Amino acid sequence: MIRSPVLVDLDRLLGELDSLACFSDAPSPAVTRIVFTPADRAARSFLLERFWEAGLEVRQDAIGNFFARWEGLEPGLPAVATGSHIDAIPYAGRYDGTVGVLGGLEAIRALRASGFRPRRPVELIVFTAEEPTRFGVGCLGSRALSGALDPNTLARLRDADGRTLDEVRREAGYTAPLESVVKRPGAYAAFVELHIEQGPHLERSGVPIGIVEAIAAPAGLRVWLEGPGGHAGTVPMHERHDPLLSGARIALGVEAAVLREGSEDTVGTVGVFDVHPGAINSIPRRVRLEIDVRDVDENRRDRVLARIRAAIHEAAGERGVHHRIEELYRDGPARSDAALLEAIEATCLELGIPFLRMKSRAYHDTVFMARLCPVAMIFIPCREGLSHCPEEYASPENIAWGVRVLAGTLARLAS
Amino acid sequence: MIRSPVLVDLDRLLGELDSLACFSDAPSPAVTRIVFTPADRAARSFLLERFWEAGLEVRQDAIGNFFARWEGLEPGLPAVATGSHIDAIPYAGRYDGTVGVLGGLEAIRALRASGFRPRRPVELIVFTAEEPTRFGVGCLGSRALSGALDPNTLARLRDADGRTLDEVRREAGYTAPLESVVKRPGAYAAFVELHIEQGPHLERSGVPIGIVEAIAAPAGLRVWLEGPGGHAGTVPMHERHDPLLSGARIALGVEAAVLREGSEDTVGTVGVFDVHPGAINSIPRRVRLEIDVRDVDENRRDRVLARIRAAIHEAAGERGVHHRIEELYRDGPARSDAALLEAIEATCLELGIPFLRMKSRAYHDTVFMARLCPVAMIFIPCREGLSHCPEEYASPENIAWGVRVLAGTLARLAS
Repeated sequence: MIRSPVLVDLDRLLGELDSLACFSDAPSPAVTRIVFTPADRAARSFLLERFWEAGLEVRQDAIGNFFARWEGLEPGLPAVATGSHIDAIPYAGRYDGTVGVLGGLEAIRALRASGFRPRRPVELIVFTAEEPTRFGVGCLGSRALSGALDPNTLARLRDADGRTLDEVRREAGYTAPLESVVKRPGAYAAFVELHIEQGPHLERSGVPIGIVEAIAAPAGLRVWLEGPGGHAGTVPMHERHDPLLSGARIALGVEAAVLREGSEDTVGTVGVFDVHPGAINSIPRRVRLEIDVRDVDENRRDRVLARIRAAIHEAAGERGVHHRIEELYRDGPARSDAALLEAIEATCLELGIPFLRMKSRAYHDTVFMARLCPVAMIFIPCREGLSHCPEEYASPENIAWGVRVLAGTLARLAS
Repeated sequence: MIRSPVLVDLDRLLGELDSLACFSDAPSPAVTRIVFTPADRAARSFLLERFWEAGLEVRQDAIGNFFARWEGLEPGLPAVATGSHIDAIPYAGRYDGTVGVLGGLEAIRALRASGFRPRRPVELIVFTAEEPTRFGVGCLGSRALSGALDPNTLARLRDADGRTLDEVRREAGYTAPLESVVKRPGAYAAFVELHIEQGPHLERSGVPIGIVEAIAAPAGLRVWLEGPGGHAGTVPMHERHDPLLSGARIALGVEAAVLREGSEDTVGTVGVFDVHPGAINSIPRRVRLEIDVRDVDENRRDRVLARIRAAIHEAAGERGVHHRIEELYRDGPARSDAALLEAIEATCLELGIPFLRMKSRAYHDTVFMARLCPVAMIFIPCREGLSHCPEEYASPENIAWGVRVLAGTLARLAS
C-alpha cells in the first residue's frame, strides 16, 4: 500500500484524451465512434501503443475486449481490475468511457512511477461496445465476458445493414471462438470503474468524487409498426392506418407511463424514431421506435414496462396498425461491494478529498463485472450533467482527482 | 381530326414502362428515382433514345425539362402539349408520372402510325422533379417553366447534403442560365396530362377514365425542433426538453386540425420525422418534421394550416423546445379549361368509353402549366387507389384506354 500521493501526469492524460477524440466519425467537438468501424479500430491501435509504451502485457479476446496487465508479485492471485469503454454513440462527447480507460492507464503509470509494487496483478480492461448503437444491445464485451450472453445469441446479433456481430468482429481481426470470451466467477479479485457521472448530482453538490452504491436496471424495447402507406394527397383520413401517428402516441405513452410513478429515479426515453419511406408526400408505411427505461428499483421499472407495452398495443390497435415488440435488453440493477466502497472512501479520506455516496442512473460494464467479482464505481462530475452530446465536459482538476482516487484504491486492493 | 381508333402498341408501351422501372435505387417492385441521381440520369438517357427513335426533335432546358416535338403543318402556331414526370419518391411504384410520359409518347407514335398530320405542333414535356423529395419543393420543372419560382429562390434550394439545385443541375449537364427556363403565357395552345388517379375513386366506380376538373391546393411545412439532448439514463424527466415528444404532439395535432373540418377533401400528413442523434440511450436533440396539407378548397386548407401552426407553437412551448417553421410550398388549386374538358369528353364518347368528372387530390405539373395555357387531366384507375408505394398498379387495359383518350384529345386540339 502507498501512503503518499501518486504522481499523476495530468498533461499527458489530457493530451491522450484529445488524441483519442480525433478517432471519430463526427466533426469535433462531437465524437462518433461505433464499434468496429474504422474510427474505432484506429482508436484501438492508438490504445495498444499506449499500453505497450507503459510496459503492460496486452491480451485481446475473441470479442475485442483488451486486457492490459501489470504483473503482481504473486502472479497466481486473481487480478484487481479497472477499465471502461471507448466506443461513443453518434454525436457524443469525449469523456464517456475514455476517462475510465485512459484514466485507468494513468493510474497504473502513476503507481509504477511512485515505486509501488502490487502483490496481486492489476488489469486494465477496455470493453467492446458498451454502447448499444450498432447492435441494439449495450455492454457487449462485459456481457459476453461475464457469461450473460450465450454465444448463439451473440452470433445472431445484427446491425442496421444486416451484418452479424460475428462477421464484423472477424473482419476486425477477432476470429477465435466466441465461447472463449467467458470468464468464471472469481476470475478477478475486484473491479473498480472510473467514469464521469453523466448527470448533474455531483456538480450541483459541489463534490468532486461520487462513490457508486448501485447502478440502475435498464431495459430496452424495439417496436415495429406497419401500415399500408399511400399517397399523402389521395387517401382520405378515415381510410388511413398511419404507423407514424401510432408511434407518436407510443412516445407520449412512454412519458406518461414513467410520470405515473412519480419518482425521480424512473426515466423513459424514445431515442430512435425511424420512418420509412420518409417523404413529405407519402403516408408512412413503417416506423421503428427504440425505447429505453431505467430505474434503480427493478420492480418499479417492470411496472413501467408493462404499462408501455399496454400503450403500444392500444396505440397500434386503435389505428389498425400492425406491431411487433422486441425486447433488446432487460438487466437487473447492480449493487456495489461494501468492502470496495470502504476502500474508495478510505482513499478519499487519505487524500483529503470530499466525496458522497450515490446511485448511477446510467449503466456501465460494471453491471456485468458484478457477476464475476465484487465491484464499485468512482464518479467525477461533468458540466451541467450533460453527456451523450458534444457539450460533455469534465474539468482537468476533477479528472485528476478521479485518477488519484482510482490509483489509491487499486493500490489498497492489490496490496 | 381522326375518327378511327388510333393504333396503340400496348406491348411496346408496357415493355418501356418495365424498362424505365429498372432505373431505380430501390429493389423491384419498388422504384426510387430522385432527381439528378445516377438512376434519374440513366432514365433520362433511356427516354432520349425513345424520343429520337420516334422521330421527335428534342430540346432540354436549363433545369432539365425535356421537350420532344412533333412538328405541325403550321409550325408557327403554339403547340398542343402533353407530358408528366419520371422522378419517383423513395420506395414508390412504377406508374406515377411515367404513364403520362411513356403514354404520351405512345399517343404520338400511334397518331403518326394512323396517318394523322397535326396542324399545330404537338409537344411531349418531361418535367424535372415533380416530387419534392430532394429539395423539399415539388414541381420544380413546371414551376420554373411557368415563372412561378424566381431564379434566385431556385438557386438557393438545397438538398439534405446541403447541395444547391444549381450545383446538381450543372453536374447533370444543365448549365444555361436558369432565367432561360421561363415561358410566357400563351406559349402553348393547351396542356393535357395523363396520370394514374393515385386514389380509389375510379376503381370503386368501375369507370376507366376520370376527367379532372380541379386539382387540390397543396401546402408544405418543415418544422425544426431543438432541445439540449442528454443521456437517456441520467436526466430526470422534469428537466427534459425533448423535441421528439413535441414532434409527437405536433403529428397528432396535424391529424386533429384536419379532422376538425370534417371534410373528405381535406388531408394532412406528417411524412418525415427525422431524429438526431437517433440513439436508444440518448435524449433527442433535434427533430425535423415535414407536413403536407391539401384541399380543393384553398380557404379551408389555410384554416387547417393556421391550426397546425398554433399546435406547433403550443407543442414546442409547453416543453421549452426551440422551434422554427419553414413554408416549403403553398400553392393555389388549379381549374381545368371548359373547352378542354369537352374535348376529352367528346373523345371518350367517340371511343365509347365510360368516364366521369372528378377532382384530383394529388397535385401535378398541370397546376403550374395552368399559368401558361388552358389545361386538363385524364386519370386512369390504379389498384386499391395505392400510389407512392411498391404496390402501385395500373392495368394494361386501363393504360391503353388512357393513351387512346389522350391521343384522340391531342388530335382534336392539334387539328
